[in-house]
Amino acid sequence: MRLELTMDSIIQFVLLFTVGLVVSALSLADGDNDELIPYRREVYGNGRIFDISHRYVADMLGYESNDGIGDFLWLRRSMKNDSIANFSEMKFSVHTGTHVDTSGHVFDHYFDAGFDVDTLDLEVLNGLALLVDVPRDKNITAEVMQSLHIPRGVIRVLFRTSNTDRRLMYQKKFNTSFMGFMKDGAKWLAENTDIKLVGTDYLSVAAYDEAIPAHLVFLESREIILLEGLKLDDVPAGSYSVHCLPLRLAGAEGSPIRCILIN
Amino acid sequence: MRLELTMDSIIQFVLLFTVGLVVSALSLADGDNDELIPYRREVYGNGRIFDISHRYVADMLGYESNDGIGDFLWLRRSMKNDSIANFSEMKFSVHTGTHVDTSGHVFDHYFDAGFDVDTLDLEVLNGLALLVDVPRDKNITAEVMQSLHIPRGVIRVLFRTSNTDRRLMYQKKFNTSFMGFMKDGAKWLAENTDIKLVGTDYLSVAAYDEAIPAHLVFLESREIILLEGLKLDDVPAGSYSVHCLPLRLAGAEGSPIRCILIN
Repeated sequence: MRLELTMDSIIQFVLLFTVGLVVSALSLADGDNDELIPYRREVYGNGRIFDISHRYVADMLGYESNDGIGDFLWLRRSMKNDSIANFSEMKFSVHTGTHVDTSGHVFDHYFDAGFDVDTLDLEVLNGLALLVDVPRDKNITAEVMQSLHIPRGVIRVLFRTSNTDRRLMYQKKFNTSFMGFMKDGAKWLAENTDIKLVGTDYLSVAAYDEAIPAHLVFLESREIILLEGLKLDDVPAGSYSVHCLPLRLAGAEGSPIRCILIN
Repeated sequence: MRLELTMDSIIQFVLLFTVGLVVSALSLADGDNDELIPYRREVYGNGRIFDISHRYVADMLGYESNDGIGDFLWLRRSMKNDSIANFSEMKFSVHTGTHVDTSGHVFDHYFDAGFDVDTLDLEVLNGLALLVDVPRDKNITAEVMQSLHIPRGVIRVLFRTSNTDRRLMYQKKFNTSFMGFMKDGAKWLAENTDIKLVGTDYLSVAAYDEAIPAHLVFLESREIILLEGLKLDDVPAGSYSVHCLPLRLAGAEGSPIRCILIN
């Protein structure tokens, strides 16, 4: 067979070559784009680590707010204004998002005496924990606590309620119908279990109507630590190693906290 | 023997009884005071947990500042003003105290693409770590890195320098003579080790004169995470389980971080 270099075949070749170049260039660009898309995870290492903390965004839910927490972060110095590096500042309530409460939150004499978030026991905040499912659409009463049969010796319990099913923490508007501890549930826990770390899945461990009485019961002895606003979606109930690390904010009655579960 | 109730003996008895009452009352008051003195620890459980994060106080060192970080916390709503609870707010740079840097700190295109602190790998931030002592009064150069003989497979290393001996992190005034990585030390680490978590004991992992070049070398690949301002006093060198948990601040090129070592 003879190769005929007609004008048509030359044009065809040039066209195909050009298309090929464009396709290569596009896929290269795609590759670059892929590389510059940040990868956000809730679970790491195929289930070895579960992140049970919520992400801070302007639309994040705030206690008794309809508008979210609003802007909490801004660039104080930006590379776009010839700074040698980017430097952001942040500002928000220490009770924002996934956070911890100390006794000074509801007891002013403890606040004045300096029982701040830096005095919390890291041994309580780090160790074996149970993630349990609470009967749905019920507050955590003494009766519910009793029905959970949490054995003596269990120090850390994360209580998952219908708040998680309803994805209440993902709504910008505060919802008073969330589930939480009633005063008698808190009292039952304090008197009949060894639990020292109590976590739930909305901005308050206590139900809205008994928020203060239940907090008072939990925090009076200064032995129980309260984790609020945990993200317990898509984590199997069971036993984990929990690690919760608040900031060492001298004088603060609470702190944002990052919590993880390790399998 | 006859008991003589003279006026003298009665007065003596009443005096002694009164003194007894006063002493009892004083010791009771003492007991109450003891109970209300907060207990701050750096080590928990007889060496099971070492807290390697600094406490946030107004006098805490700030980068290139003589005056410390200043007031960073205030009561937005106080029980002294009839609030049902105390609610503090905080405000400070995400690079304050013990903190983590991400690639967006020194690479603006990574900042714009969203490689914020929430995209950091929790598997790098949690796991086996080495705490090593660096030869004193030297920056961490390629030569120093080579001399440390850190084996392949070691992912997390905390470098203790003379900054710890000099207690530089406890001084209110920023001191440019701190020790840290030189650019060639950072390059040697990136090219010849498997280290993905690098921590040091002053506000910058990089020596003052090479702060930006060394940060660029570390952060370009987005694989290395930098811990700055660690508190490494009184912790034996060796192998630990490290847990470092930053806040999930969407959009931030860094975050305050609480870090602990578990034995």
